[in-house]
Amino acid sequence: MKYLEEIGLRARAAATKLNVLGQEEKNNGLRACAKALLEMEEIILKANETDVTNAKNNGVKESLIDRLSLTHERIVSMAEGLKEITGLDDPIGEIISMKNRPNGLSIGQKRVPLGVVGIIYESRPNVTADAFGLCFKTGNAVILRGGSDAIHSNKAIVNVIQKALVKVSLPGDSVILIEDTSRETATELMKLNKYIDVLIPRGGEGLIKSVVENSTIPVIETGTGNCHIYVDEFADLDMAVNIIINAKTQRLGVCNACESLVVHKSVAKEFIPQIVEALTLRNVEIRGDMDSRVLSAQIKEAAEEDWGREYLDSIISLKIVNSIEEGISHINKYNTKHSEAIITKDYNNSMKFLNEIDAAAVYVNASTRFTDGFEFGFGAEIGISTQKLHARGPMGLLALTTTKYIIFGNGQIRP
Amino acid sequence: MKYLEEIGLRARAAATKLNVLGQEEKNNGLRACAKALLEMEEIILKANETDVTNAKNNGVKESLIDRLSLTHERIVSMAEGLKEITGLDDPIGEIISMKNRPNGLSIGQKRVPLGVVGIIYESRPNVTADAFGLCFKTGNAVILRGGSDAIHSNKAIVNVIQKALVKVSLPGDSVILIEDTSRETATELMKLNKYIDVLIPRGGEGLIKSVVENSTIPVIETGTGNCHIYVDEFADLDMAVNIIINAKTQRLGVCNACESLVVHKSVAKEFIPQIVEALTLRNVEIRGDMDSRVLSAQIKEAAEEDWGREYLDSIISLKIVNSIEEGISHINKYNTKHSEAIITKDYNNSMKFLNEIDAAAVYVNASTRFTDGFEFGFGAEIGISTQKLHARGPMGLLALTTTKYIIFGNGQIRP
Repeated sequence: MKYLEEIGLRARAAATKLNVLGQEEKNNGLRACAKALLEMEEIILKANETDVTNAKNNGVKESLIDRLSLTHERIVSMAEGLKEITGLDDPIGEIISMKNRPNGLSIGQKRVPLGVVGIIYESRPNVTADAFGLCFKTGNAVILRGGSDAIHSNKAIVNVIQKALVKVSLPGDSVILIEDTSRETATELMKLNKYIDVLIPRGGEGLIKSVVENSTIPVIETGTGNCHIYVDEFADLDMAVNIIINAKTQRLGVCNACESLVVHKSVAKEFIPQIVEALTLRNVEIRGDMDSRVLSAQIKEAAEEDWGREYLDSIISLKIVNSIEEGISHINKYNTKHSEAIITKDYNNSMKFLNEIDAAAVYVNASTRFTDGFEFGFGAEIGISTQKLHARGPMGLLALTTTKYIIFGNGQIRP
Repeated sequence: MKYLEEIGLRARAAATKLNVLGQEEKNNGLRACAKALLEMEEIILKANETDVTNAKNNGVKESLIDRLSLTHERIVSMAEGLKEITGLDDPIGEIISMKNRPNGLSIGQKRVPLGVVGIIYESRPNVTADAFGLCFKTGNAVILRGGSDAIHSNKAIVNVIQKALVKVSLPGDSVILIEDTSRETATELMKLNKYIDVLIPRGGEGLIKSVVENSTIPVIETGTGNCHIYVDEFADLDMAVNIIINAKTQRLGVCNACESLVVHKSVAKEFIPQIVEALTLRNVEIRGDMDSRVLSAQIKEAAEEDWGREYLDSIISLKIVNSIEEGISHINKYNTKHSEAIITKDYNNSMKFLNEIDAAAVYVNASTRFTDGFEFGFGAEIGISTQKLHARGPMGLLALTTTKYIIFGNGQIRP
């Protein structure tokens, strides 16, 4: 615990300094870091080579090695990412409201940094620079705990950033990497309430589950998406095919991809063959209920567990329902509260779906793939929250802030 | 676990219905419950008598028995509380923002209920009606777990409310009491993520600590307040005495009471004798550092642990500092992020204190006792959050809501 305590103290001290920095100082820091990443490219690439070699020796699969690998282009893109953050509005210091009370007190609410943010993530080393940039812009210190696969790359990147900050007289401890990547240290980190204000896990289902179960620090749960598209009895079926193909196949391994179709029985006979053809053409396996399998021999049998699965793969589940009510209650039962869509031309059904579906993002006649900080116009994204506290849906800079009440008096006491 | 699962399912089903209720339906429900509480007064008082008798037999101390006891006046006040909630603005359904994106999507953010709220609280049975009222108004179902001391009173109150709701065709399961008050069941309740969206503990430090440590459900931490008043070198000393006496003695056992004084050395010689006299007159024991004890023989010696204590009693700690910087860093080190005040006539020092103190509410020249939902003008209070996620400071109806994104398209797919 001593190792983490010391890191906690350093991060807390940095946060106190970051709390009072102005916008221009923070943007200068980000620009200095972007420049340093480009200048120190060779050192970072060399460290990354070690990680990649180790991964290959450990028999890590190709797709993960690709995520782990850095190239000149990826380092340029990291640096560009930091520069882009300088262009975003700084939310810190905004007075959200200010009201006078009958007793003469003026009570206002001011936007302030969270303090110290902890981020636990998996192998992509570009998250290191990205997460630092968003936290720094919002005046937060950040403690990073990346995966052991990327440890050399992460060390090199954090080292470059820390030195660049110190060079322009900003606190190097604005970002600290936990270099001990053991599971025990990660679990201890999750209980460091004294020093960490918020913990954000970024990664697969297992990681997120472990953080939710073990952390005593408030967590922002991100990620898993068992997203549905409901094809209403009044759907434009061509639009439905077009949106489903996009939501399922435009990118398979992402949380806002569609994993399950729900189809109203009155359009099933016409629609199922169309969508099965379109999906099969793109090598997507369909797992359906009995009613759907009667309509197409290409549909495999869905097990009960299929309804709750986030495949992140070329598989989709399919259920036929007798009414919009049945569709909504099926979705609310099995979804992960991420993104859900209805395809319909009917006003009442669109409103019913928007009102009754319990999810971070509910769509009418559009692809679920839009659930994303950039697509929503935030200019940045720290993750997609699937919980209901604090932030829900794509999280931009605002999600990295909190508020405090500021009260101006002239001697008021409580009667 | 089966007992809780069944309760979770019932609450979830009620929440689905509450989610689509209009303002008038909810207000009618609240009025019906208020009426029923008055009509069923005798039954409630009789149940309360059992609790009070048991408590006396168990040797529970007088102040706790007072908190536990119901009277005609207290039942009237519960009923009035529910009626008052009908007069508050219903935040549900408000569209907070709606923007068009370049691709033609309209993306809006709508205020919606949290879903199912869990509240774990200690012996005051009036919390039962109050917590139900605030949750119901915001379209949330609530699962209550009160203390074993008040179990008969709580059962009676919940029973009356449930019957009143059913009588006006509203879901009786809008409020469910956990009748098994064992510690094991409480711990299981804290892990019922599948059915409960948010858990709010209301009670003493031990209860809150146990919930923070054991819950896997997102928690809103409420409560403990080690609140400081800093007397600046440019303070109006009469105002300082007046505010400190109010903040310390107006009510001893509350979280926004002042527990610690921090005094700038340049006013110490003049100020310490004044404040010691005023506090001693009101039987408040003062525990100070060495510098302060030189100035008054009535100050007892403070131990290191005194700086971090929430006394909730006739005791206050006192520290002399050499500068406002030292004062701020002392407060940020030992406070519980609740409420802190500066007494000063100096503009720069007031701004510095407001900017640099890390707390839910920061005051200039006013008593910390104002940190309260009613005093802040919210018309209600579900607790005072001392965490940074979701809600910070006094929580009114808004804290019982979340948002969801609603997206209107006409066939958009992601390129």
